[in-house]
Amino acid sequence: MMDLQKQYQELLEKYLENLDEKNLYFAQQFSRKFIEQEIAPEDVVSLHKDAVMNIFPELRNEVATTHDFLIEMMIHYGLALREHQSLIKKRE
Amino acid sequence: MMDLQKQYQELLEKYLENLDEKNLYFAQQFSRKFIEQEIAPEDVVSLHKDAVMNIFPELRNEVATTHDFLIEMMIHYGLALREHQSLIKKRE
Repeated sequence: MMDLQKQYQELLEKYLENLDEKNLYFAQQFSRKFIEQEIAPEDVVSLHKDAVMNIFPELRNEVATTHDFLIEMMIHYGLALREHQSLIKKRE
Repeated sequence: MMDLQKQYQELLEKYLENLDEKNLYFAQQFSRKFIEQEIAPEDVVSLHKDAVMNIFPELRNEVATTHDFLIEMMIHYGLALREHQSLIKKRE
């Protein structure tokens, strides 16, 4: 997870520096890899939270907390997706 | 979508005021409703972005932009989930 955290943060930093299509394309490729590795959407939001708070250390604690709310929102999406992945596996 | 935006923001504000289990439970119930209504995870992040920027109008534009990156990350999760929903429908 440590490596993913570093990669995620680097990609987000590049995106913020240079808002071009190329970096969005990398983000999409990256998220495809995440899904293959069965990383849950709530874990992506958690990586995102840590990256944002590292990049902007001056942000108030409340901004970190907004991410916790989004993590909670994503938990059911994660469950629905895992159900999907287990259906796919049963068919294989 | 306007109503959802308002509801989402109210729920997030309550959560930030009072970080208790009850509000997390409401968030979970809310996300279940979202999935039933086939609202994509990238749309949830978009609602979240607008709510955060309304609640903290002093935040820099870069913080809004970090959400755009997360929206991009969620697009493939949304695709995987829609595939799941169409599989379920075929079985019914």
